[in-house]
Order: sequence, then C-alpha cells, then structure tokens
Amino acid sequence: MTTQHTPYTIGHAPSQTKHHEWRTASNSAAHLLPHLQKALTSNPNLNLLDIGCGPGTISASLAQHLLPSGHVLATDIADDVLSRAKEHAISQGLSVPGNISFQKASVYELPFSDNEFDIVHAHQVLCHLDDPVSAVKEMLRVCKPGGLISLRESDMRMWCFWPELPSLLKFHDLMVEVMLANGGQDKGGRKLVSWIMDAGVDRKDIEAGFGTWCYRVEEMVKGWEEWIERGEATLGIVNGEVIVRKAQA
Amino acid sequence: MTTQHTPYTIGHAPSQTKHHEWRTASNSAAHLLPHLQKALTSNPNLNLLDIGCGPGTISASLAQHLLPSGHVLATDIADDVLSRAKEHAISQGLSVPGNISFQKASVYELPFSDNEFDIVHAHQVLCHLDDPVSAVKEMLRVCKPGGLISLRESDMRMWCFWPELPSLLKFHDLMVEVMLANGGQDKGGRKLVSWIMDAGVDRKDIEAGFGTWCYRVEEMVKGWEEWIERGEATLGIVNGEVIVRKAQA
Repeated sequence: MTTQHTPYTIGHAPSQTKHHEWRTASNSAAHLLPHLQKALTSNPNLNLLDIGCGPGTISASLAQHLLPSGHVLATDIADDVLSRAKEHAISQGLSVPGNISFQKASVYELPFSDNEFDIVHAHQVLCHLDDPVSAVKEMLRVCKPGGLISLRESDMRMWCFWPELPSLLKFHDLMVEVMLANGGQDKGGRKLVSWIMDAGVDRKDIEAGFGTWCYRVEEMVKGWEEWIERGEATLGIVNGEVIVRKAQA
Repeated sequence: MTTQHTPYTIGHAPSQTKHHEWRTASNSAAHLLPHLQKALTSNPNLNLLDIGCGPGTISASLAQHLLPSGHVLATDIADDVLSRAKEHAISQGLSVPGNISFQKASVYELPFSDNEFDIVHAHQVLCHLDDPVSAVKEMLRVCKPGGLISLRESDMRMWCFWPELPSLLKFHDLMVEVMLANGGQDKGGRKLVSWIMDAGVDRKDIEAGFGTWCYRVEEMVKGWEEWIERGEATLGIVNGEVIVRKAQA
C-alpha cells in the first residue's frame, strides 16, 4: 500500500471552499439517499465514514439524515478544513461528537479496523489520487460485509460550457493539465466502475449512473466575467456515481 | 419560416427503434413530471403536444400521467413510426383518440392554432434540426401563455465511453460527423438555453439542468461486441433539459 498522496489540485482558497460549501447530500449524494433510508429502517444506529470531507457540508448533511442515533465520522488529510468542517457541523445544530466527529486520515491508510463502517462515502476524492484502486481497496477493507460504498467523481473531460469563449476553454484545459500533473485523474466519472472492479468487486455488486451539476451565472467564481455577462451562460459538470455493496464474507 | 427539414440521422432501423422504445416519461422526461403533476392539480384536462414522438413510448407514458381526462397529441414527420406509435399506445391500454391521438406534422410548420396547448414537449428533436431556433419559436406560438415547453437534447460531445476502445471512439466520431453533415447539432445539450433565448424567451422563464443516461452491457446495440465483453463497459450520455414558461401575454 502506498502512503504518498496527491497534492490537492483545487486548493483551499476561500472562493473554492465557498463553492464546496454549497454542496449538500441532496445535490451531491442523491444516489446514496434512497439506500441510506432503506438501511436506516433495519439499523437506526448506522455509522458512516465520510472520506475527504473538505469543509464538511455534505458530511453534516449526511449526519442530519442519520439523526437521531446514526453517526458520521468525517476525515480529511488537511487539518485546516477539518476544523472548519467541525464549526460548520456545530452551526447546523449537530452534536460533536454525538452525531458527527472528525479525524485526520489518509485514504490510503485509514486508521480503522476491518469491517468497521456500515457505509463508506467519498465525494470527489478518487479524482485527486494517483492510485484510486488502492483507495477503493482501503474503503472496502473498513466497510462491513454487506455494507455500502458510495462514490461520486467528476469527469473533467465531460465538462461543457456554452458559450465556448476561448479563454474559458483554455482555463479548462489548464485545470485538466494541472490535475494530471498533480497525479490526479481527468476521467474519473467514466472510470469508476473499472477502478472498483480492479479493486476486486464483482460487477453485479456495483450500481452505476451519472449525475450532473448545472451552474448558472450567479454561481460562477470571479474572473469569468465576460462569460458571466452572457445570460445564456451554462456550465454542465458530469459526475460518475456508484453504489457498491460489499460482498458477504 | 423554413419548411425544409433535416434528414433524421438515427433512422428507423429495428435495433434503433427498439432502443427508443425503452424510453418512458420517467427515464426521459423526469424534469417535466413534477411540473405536470402541479399543472394537473389546477387543470385535470391538460392538453399536451408531443413533437417528434418517434415510436411513441414517451408519448404513451405521458398520456398515462394525464389520465383520466388529459390528452396527448403526438406528432412526427414520418408516417411509419406514427402507426407504430399508435399500436404501442393501444397495447398500453390507452384509448385512441380519447387519451392520445397522432398526426403527421413538421415542427417548422405545426398545423395548429396559436396558444392551443398547455404543454409542448419535444425529446431529442432539436438536435436533428438545422434551425432549432425556428422550431422553438413555432413551439412557443402554439403554447398557451403561461404554459410550458419541455425540451431535452443530447450533447453528443459529452458522450463518454470506458474503456475507450479506438473502434468505439471512431464510431462515435463518425456519428457526430453524420449528424453534422445532415444539418443536425452536436452540442444541443449545452446550447438549449441559448436557442430558447434566441427565440425570444427571457432567461428568468427558463429552468435548465442536465440529465443523463447510463448504459450497461445488455443495453448496447449489436456490433459493439468487443466493448460489450468488458464487464466495466460504461457509456454515459448527457442531455440538456429545460422547462420554459411562456410569458403571459
């Protein structure tokens, strides 16, 4: 198992973190929610591991879905976002560590026992890694037999812009180059099923789909002004989404 | 207004029509369904125009959502698919013409009065046209003020395959070339908002998003055998989706 980890291409600039804070379970883990509801009916004490939680808005949102007696353990490789994520959870009325707790961890070496979590969730994490298959193996290790692993990864080659201003296309090409130079992945969305099978999972235990984000003018980061001024400005981002059921031992 | 129409790139080969018959309102017009439910509560006699209905499985499915007293009028430029669509509707237990009726029509010159329909729906139609803006204007003409226009268009440049076998990528490039040579559109998904604004609609009256189809092995057409044999084979298709509310006069 490798212990190296890929530089986080996106960084934690305030503008980027603000964008990430827009994320909730509804807009970013919709493929998981029906499974969560179903699992809760047989086990109200679900424990969910959220890997690479960033500012933690999805983590907090998932913790709210697990109330009153489930629990989320949110991890990240970066200390500073973990403390921000903790503040966010408290601001949402969650009890720390009753409903949600936070811990620094590398996805390549999760400091947890085998078969510990009912659900393992990671959102836009594998695309930042140089070895996504090892990360999936590690997720499988800490997931209980019969438990679920929920993944959602952007496919940078499927972003689409309209209008296609040259400066914007250049910016996107640069983003992809930097992502690849950092050892990350540009086609995570379409490769998800392949990575999971390479980690040893049978295709029948994988439920795969694609989800999208669609942005309008107001949601775009500063610096895209020319594009923003166009009323028809549209940005589509396609994310691969999978639910994996860990086989019974 | 132009009367020419673009050759229908996909054709009506049995394999292709079979794929189209897989389509229902749930998997192909999910963005419209909540609006339909809401509109039905104030008007149970909704009349919906479905343009370019093809084998009519979405039309029949929409007619079932409008039961008992709404009505779908399904149109297509091709006679042969219209008769197949009628047979399909009858096989689904619908009354023709009570619940659904069929009529040959060009989207460029709809044989209907102004302000005639509560809802105008077209699925994968604009991408086959050389002048989508004129088509949208014609849809707006026949839609009642305050009524809805529902569109969903694939973006061929956002298809993604994994594994990326050269033969498959070549096949996709060829599909795009033929589509363009026939006067159709390769980026319909991302251009939808732009086309509708060019037809005179204000951005505030447009609700835009993207939806996807995700295919597995069993769903692929014959001839893609090499690709099909790979368990991880994944095809994602991204569709732009919009709901337009026609402004009150």
